[in-house]
Amino acid sequence: MRIENIEKTRLTADVFEEKNFGSSFSDHMLVCEFKENEWQEPVIKPYGQINFTPAMHALHYGQACFEGMKAFKGENGDVFLFRPEKNFERINKSAERLAMPAIPKEIFLDGLKALIDLDRAWVPSKYGMSLYIRPVIFSTEEIISARGSNSFMFVILTSIAPDYYNKPLRVKVADHYSRAANGGVGYAKAAGNYGASFYPTGLAKEEGFDQVIWTDAATHSYFEEAGTMNIFVRIEDKLLTAPISDRILNGVTRDSLILLAEKNGMTVEQRPIEVSEVYEANQNGSLKEVFGCGTAVVLNNFSAIGYTDKVMELPEITEESWGPQLKKQMNEIQYGIADDPFGWRVLVERK
Amino acid sequence: MRIENIEKTRLTADVFEEKNFGSSFSDHMLVCEFKENEWQEPVIKPYGQINFTPAMHALHYGQACFEGMKAFKGENGDVFLFRPEKNFERINKSAERLAMPAIPKEIFLDGLKALIDLDRAWVPSKYGMSLYIRPVIFSTEEIISARGSNSFMFVILTSIAPDYYNKPLRVKVADHYSRAANGGVGYAKAAGNYGASFYPTGLAKEEGFDQVIWTDAATHSYFEEAGTMNIFVRIEDKLLTAPISDRILNGVTRDSLILLAEKNGMTVEQRPIEVSEVYEANQNGSLKEVFGCGTAVVLNNFSAIGYTDKVMELPEITEESWGPQLKKQMNEIQYGIADDPFGWRVLVERK
Ligand SMILES: Cc1ncc(COP(=O)(O)O)c(C=O)c1O
Ligand SMILES: Cc1ncc(COP(=O)(O)O)c(C=O)c1O
Repeated sequence: MRIENIEKTRLTADVFEEKNFGSSFSDHMLVCEFKENEWQEPVIKPYGQINFTPAMHALHYGQACFEGMKAFKGENGDVFLFRPEKNFERINKSAERLAMPAIPKEIFLDGLKALIDLDRAWVPSKYGMSLYIRPVIFSTEEIISARGSNSFMFVILTSIAPDYYNKPLRVKVADHYSRAANGGVGYAKAAGNYGASFYPTGLAKEEGFDQVIWTDAATHSYFEEAGTMNIFVRIEDKLLTAPISDRILNGVTRDSLILLAEKNGMTVEQRPIEVSEVYEANQNGSLKEVFGCGTAVVLNNFSAIGYTDKVMELPEITEESWGPQLKKQMNEIQYGIADDPFGWRVLVERK
Repeated sequence: MRIENIEKTRLTADVFEEKNFGSSFSDHMLVCEFKENEWQEPVIKPYGQINFTPAMHALHYGQACFEGMKAFKGENGDVFLFRPEKNFERINKSAERLAMPAIPKEIFLDGLKALIDLDRAWVPSKYGMSLYIRPVIFSTEEIISARGSNSFMFVILTSIAPDYYNKPLRVKVADHYSRAANGGVGYAKAAGNYGASFYPTGLAKEEGFDQVIWTDAATHSYFEEAGTMNIFVRIEDKLLTAPISDRILNGVTRDSLILLAEKNGMTVEQRPIEVSEVYEANQNGSLKEVFGCGTAVVLNNFSAIGYTDKVMELPEITEESWGPQLKKQMNEIQYGIADDPFGWRVLVERK
């Protein structure tokens, strides 16, 4: 691994006042090219321009996938990653489905740690804030032929993550548009999945919602995901979440919340969740809460769910609600405040 | 529109010997940026680099779509486009589904003609060859937040199209993977659709096939498209093609072939085509031919269709086959050799 240091940091106190997610980039990025059938030496260098023509393969064919993770700063200044191996495994699952070469573990994990160590001053120390980490692989061949690329670039960017969604969300159940199908790329963090979601999400926003709850493409009668989050429904004292399939992203937060909930003695069932069942549970009072989860937000409760032309208002969040409790427990593990019974925290060593 | 000319052309006789599709770019490209809610002045300039950081939105979220069209050179040196209005309409359909701003007609069509006029020397004069035209729109905001971009770039590239697939293709019916679902983006020429197809296509290639016949994601029992082509099946003297839906790209070649076939007195039915029906027709001898069609190839007959672990060998192409006849008629219209009863040809005027 080669390191090209910046001459002068761009870091100022203002950076930590950033209100937008994903637009304030730290000093360095990691870049590693795949060519002649091999991943080349990774280079950590100043964040900035790369040279491409508009014939770059990825711009035409979306042969690209990414990851989303965070670095957290503890009270004593230690910097932690959260289950980075999970993201490493998942990016290679995504890459396989998109016919891209797997990234070696050393490049992903050692590169990641070296980059975060170098830019550790960029990790906000405020609880609730973090440094968002974006590994991405995209195809770089200068060709406009509809076949897989022969060259790729793996990049890790980092950027300030302010406190994300903080109010309960109003979500709309998809009854026409779909995100994923059997045999498709829904389980991959494929670039095209996101591009395809903006229009339906925009329509939901025009109706006053914040996000879409994706349902199965075939019948639109089962909950699958909520925006870019996995979804949990609590009916009485049981947490339900849709089972992992080739239509659903296997979220690291989802997996962690299941383990954490079980440790709290909560019952969790991974099984298909019918829209009608949630609707009925809300009518008969057994529906306690519905929330989405993902790296960006950790966990976000919903206040209302729109379905066709009806809107069901969900119960208010109270001291008894599980969502906020689980979120707090997750955060305290992430920031090094609480014990880490599962060994999820990974310290970024100072080199 | 502003024009920045190259200093010295890169065109040499070798260019016309190019054997690879989409890798030999002509001297100029058209670039038009969308920012501050407006398409800016289009610029025709030397083909080459644009400056981006790896945080360019399209690389992460696949908010990108494209078109594919061709310029043909007639015997007297005239250069023709083929139904460019169709591509103009389609790119805006794709753009809408991907939450991107529509391109004004003047920018698309006038820009296209000016670009082809300027680089007309790049249009090969050999029958069967052409200049491939690639309009593309991609998102350019420097942000890694999973929401639609606020800035975009529209580019038109052109590149030498050698004679494409020339032998009959062996195709494999998808019985697990899928390309599109109801409510998805299959009808759009969305970048992500192509990235998602390389892996299943690669698996088919490992089994000795050239392409995949995509079937409906729900049951895998109906033909939808073949690779990046629309599909036609001839049973006795009837041509069948899958009806346009939100899962199928509305091909310009498909549309043109339907009109051309009908003009030849052939019967064309647009209706769902069951895999089993094609299989049975092949067994009882009523299946005459199966072919794919699209701008790149015009039309390509299939020699075999794999389905699960069976392979059906298709009838040989003969003088009676419709595919080659229709292809020839299309080409003769495109190259200005035959009359143009439908008014499809558009002359690129010399300015
Ligand atoms: C579609 C989708 N579902 C779920 C998630 C949650 O996954 P994770 O918890 O690993 O961030 C994400 C990513 O944030 C996503 O993009
Ligand atoms: C998926 C797909 N189907 C069909 C076609 C054929 O469309 P056209 O005839 O407009 O080129 C294309 C593009 O070439 C395509 O990408």
